[in-house]
Amino acid sequence: MRALRALRPRRLPAGRAMAAAAAAAATGPGPAPGSGPGGGRGPVLTPGTMNPAVRRVEYAVRGPIVTRALQLEQDLRQGVPKPFTEVIKANIGDAQAMGQKPITFLRQVPGAGVGDNGRGHGGDTPVSGRGPRRPGAERVPPQVTALCLYPELLTEPSIPEDAKDRARRLLAACGGQSAGAYSASPGIELVRQDVARFLQRRDGVPAKPQDIFLSTGASDAIVSILKLLVSGSGGSRTGVLIPIPQYPLYSAAIAELSAVQLNYYLDEEHCWALDVAELRRALAEGRRHCCPRVLCIINPGNPTGQVQSRQCIEDVIKFAFEEKLFLMADEVYQDNIYAEGSAFHSFKKVLFEMGPPYSEVVELASFHSVSKGFMGECGFRSGYVEVVNMDPEVQQQLAKLVSVRLCPPVPGQILLDAVVDPPQPGDPSYELFIAEKQAVLSTLAHKARLTQEIFNRAPGIRCNPVQGAMYSFPRIELPPRALAAAEAQGQAPDMFFCMKLLEETGICVVPGSGFGQREGTFHFRPGASPCLYPRMTILPPTEKLQVLLEKLSSFYAKFVKEYS
Amino acid sequence: MRALRALRPRRLPAGRAMAAAAAAAATGPGPAPGSGPGGGRGPVLTPGTMNPAVRRVEYAVRGPIVTRALQLEQDLRQGVPKPFTEVIKANIGDAQAMGQKPITFLRQVPGAGVGDNGRGHGGDTPVSGRGPRRPGAERVPPQVTALCLYPELLTEPSIPEDAKDRARRLLAACGGQSAGAYSASPGIELVRQDVARFLQRRDGVPAKPQDIFLSTGASDAIVSILKLLVSGSGGSRTGVLIPIPQYPLYSAAIAELSAVQLNYYLDEEHCWALDVAELRRALAEGRRHCCPRVLCIINPGNPTGQVQSRQCIEDVIKFAFEEKLFLMADEVYQDNIYAEGSAFHSFKKVLFEMGPPYSEVVELASFHSVSKGFMGECGFRSGYVEVVNMDPEVQQQLAKLVSVRLCPPVPGQILLDAVVDPPQPGDPSYELFIAEKQAVLSTLAHKARLTQEIFNRAPGIRCNPVQGAMYSFPRIELPPRALAAAEAQGQAPDMFFCMKLLEETGICVVPGSGFGQREGTFHFRPGASPCLYPRMTILPPTEKLQVLLEKLSSFYAKFVKEYS
Repeated sequence: MRALRALRPRRLPAGRAMAAAAAAAATGPGPAPGSGPGGGRGPVLTPGTMNPAVRRVEYAVRGPIVTRALQLEQDLRQGVPKPFTEVIKANIGDAQAMGQKPITFLRQVPGAGVGDNGRGHGGDTPVSGRGPRRPGAERVPPQVTALCLYPELLTEPSIPEDAKDRARRLLAACGGQSAGAYSASPGIELVRQDVARFLQRRDGVPAKPQDIFLSTGASDAIVSILKLLVSGSGGSRTGVLIPIPQYPLYSAAIAELSAVQLNYYLDEEHCWALDVAELRRALAEGRRHCCPRVLCIINPGNPTGQVQSRQCIEDVIKFAFEEKLFLMADEVYQDNIYAEGSAFHSFKKVLFEMGPPYSEVVELASFHSVSKGFMGECGFRSGYVEVVNMDPEVQQQLAKLVSVRLCPPVPGQILLDAVVDPPQPGDPSYELFIAEKQAVLSTLAHKARLTQEIFNRAPGIRCNPVQGAMYSFPRIELPPRALAAAEAQGQAPDMFFCMKLLEETGICVVPGSGFGQREGTFHFRPGASPCLYPRMTILPPTEKLQVLLEKLSSFYAKFVKEYS
Repeated sequence: MRALRALRPRRLPAGRAMAAAAAAAATGPGPAPGSGPGGGRGPVLTPGTMNPAVRRVEYAVRGPIVTRALQLEQDLRQGVPKPFTEVIKANIGDAQAMGQKPITFLRQVPGAGVGDNGRGHGGDTPVSGRGPRRPGAERVPPQVTALCLYPELLTEPSIPEDAKDRARRLLAACGGQSAGAYSASPGIELVRQDVARFLQRRDGVPAKPQDIFLSTGASDAIVSILKLLVSGSGGSRTGVLIPIPQYPLYSAAIAELSAVQLNYYLDEEHCWALDVAELRRALAEGRRHCCPRVLCIINPGNPTGQVQSRQCIEDVIKFAFEEKLFLMADEVYQDNIYAEGSAFHSFKKVLFEMGPPYSEVVELASFHSVSKGFMGECGFRSGYVEVVNMDPEVQQQLAKLVSVRLCPPVPGQILLDAVVDPPQPGDPSYELFIAEKQAVLSTLAHKARLTQEIFNRAPGIRCNPVQGAMYSFPRIELPPRALAAAEAQGQAPDMFFCMKLLEETGICVVPGSGFGQREGTFHFRPGASPCLYPRMTILPPTEKLQVLLEKLSSFYAKFVKEYS
């Protein structure tokens, strides 16, 4: 309807239609000169007049393939026959959408006579009404988020005092003792203190509440920091070094802010490792046409799943010191480490362990979130950034900038507090909390291995170990005729493959080109086959993931036959 | 500590200190030419190199006066003697921070043996532990937000089926049936449908879910729409017409996006009315140096509290049609109408009642929020924009733009659903809901009148009727010597007054210059005295508000004596 109406010439009052027709030829923003009141009255905002920086923004994780997946889901609901019974959305790291149950301590109210709803942790048990209670569930105090949102429960005698104390402490820190009031713009002061304590425990180096800014998910904080850093025009525009493959928030924000994206390529042959020589190459190239000032690191990697070694982080910090770059460390997957021998090292810990001059000079912003890890609380939109060695006046400007949006969502801030201040041994809720957390993380570790195994069994598919995060990013060789077939349909080869996969199997993955890739990946090069990289989460329940991986492998075998 | 460290020269490795000292003289972004690796290693991000657009941003509602108020609160807590016992923050429209109790239906769980916590609606009863239950409170179903966040309650036999049905309906629309999953980027489809139905009931004209984009508070949606509209450079930059006085989100967003702010002045002598002749003047002036494309209206007014007549809205729409302007209607105070004879008319309703060509051509974005109205749920950060007559391709670009931040907070979306789909007569929760809603709104109406009365009794203070919204914006004449005294302290006269008020009485209001004002308001003009305008909310509980108004009046009388 909308589209049709847009194609129709708009009705105009008598006498204006002619003027409108004449003025319609003139494009570009602004009133057509001499058009006078009402003359040339087409829409103000058109693809031609809109913000060109917004036009340049791309965000593959929710692109056309996801739109098609939603349509297919609707078709299925309406009984349209399809070669599959369910669309499996492996396009996004959304644990609870894949059936992972919220961690009890973070959210739920198993007291007051109600318990487990029968969904398993790790997403492995489908929603199936009320299941048997876990032993000991009755002992678990209704947790902090619930008590804060419904303070009436504070008068309930059956609720243990330790839970009430936690909630009272947080509520006392809220305006009017209510989660419905705005908080301070950088977040509730008490939560910032708890985050600082959490970081101090994690890193063994001091952390200050005033260096922590809570945010509406990590994305919000990442964009705020980039906003501060972007300046200049023409050859003095800020250049931002990002890994390729990257998480497309970075390219989207860089486009929107009219900064310059500078790609450094991760080394696929070495498990997507970051190589400082490659950083140096990208920087030198960037210096020819812009002013590189920012280096973004994603560790553990999204979409590539690699976990950086301590040595590599140290090298990166030295590089940033020497080349005068501001470091942005996206560490939202810090809890998601699966590979043996891999460990998470925070940039801040390594920076401080390196000592002066690094620890006193190198500027660092490190990001975290409640959406990933073992929590998977994406819907709450909660995260934070810690800034290190930031110029105090700039930090005041950051505080001012975030104040314009008033504050991050308070329910998410409260949930974050429960994440950074979890139950301790001896607390009534400790045993269940730690059991649930371990269950989620060990299931993910199992699924990471499973993914790698099944993919590497399939001829033509090669998958690096998923050392961390939540995604596999396998390399799939393209059969020779697939390139031409994709071209004939006006699609990139990986979009062609992923769309066919979706239509035939119901599996929704994101074409790797949305994450960036080396030039020429699709093209024949001496000694190399053209290939594509779908990003897919390892979050579906184990059995469903196994089916998905096998379906994908056999779809690919068929695809190879068809296009060889 | 931070500030001190910043003043200290940073320690550099041996041999680099000289190079650093030399390079320190060179300012501006980018590597100092020939500085080489590690040379000239000051911070990357400094006040001089940061984004100049961010530097230009100002946001008075949370500016220096609020920072000082927070310090004073801390002083009081630590027993530092002050001439007052409490800081009253009348700087921001934050109902629950002022003691207003959340509307039961929207949030609470009065079932399961717990009830009213003793805080009154309208913010008039201080928090005082558990009070007596309201009659009939037991019949109220635990409402939708609670059930959605804690689905375990769905198995609780004591909870009425109608509440469970609502919650099941919303949960079925969430990924994995969990509020912890991401929603679609423009919001949960079902909530968008409910918003569309709400708008259809309100306006009597069609509304479509695909034209509704949920957001992280109205601020988020306002910035998204402005982002689309901003383009050009130099003389072709987008000009945005905003009222003066305005809500400073507008000036802040315009500064950040490097658009051009075009002021049109509301008519204080006629109760802050909008005059189209003044719009015309501002537009003509703007056309001399930029490309005006957007007209922002705040109705009911913030900070000015006026409610636009239907005729005025029609005139504005004609003006936008004739002058080819995109309309942004900030209607977040649509429930807050107090003056007799005033009524809220939505821009969309008037637009459609005007019929073609207006209804088919004029582009409109209308904003709403759960933070204001009778709800006051600021902490949840939830709102939406409805776009009307937007170019379909631009609308797709908007959908893409919002997808980069994944989705608005889901708890806020669920709360919004309860706001747009409230209990109906006959529903178990209807009576309490409507009683609470009326109590909040009638208390606000009472406080609006009280404010006007007390202020207009004081010589030198003149206050227009607070017809709507949540603020008074009284005009206060400056005694002759106050100007010089302010100047001596390097402060704007209104900051001087408001800071003195805060230090002596604990009352925190925002200096009006943060909302913009006519040039020369502080200066002597023939026939006019210099004056200042503090913005203050009418949200404190009635008795506290009365004390506040009287304290302010008597502080002013003293101030006049001191500086005459």
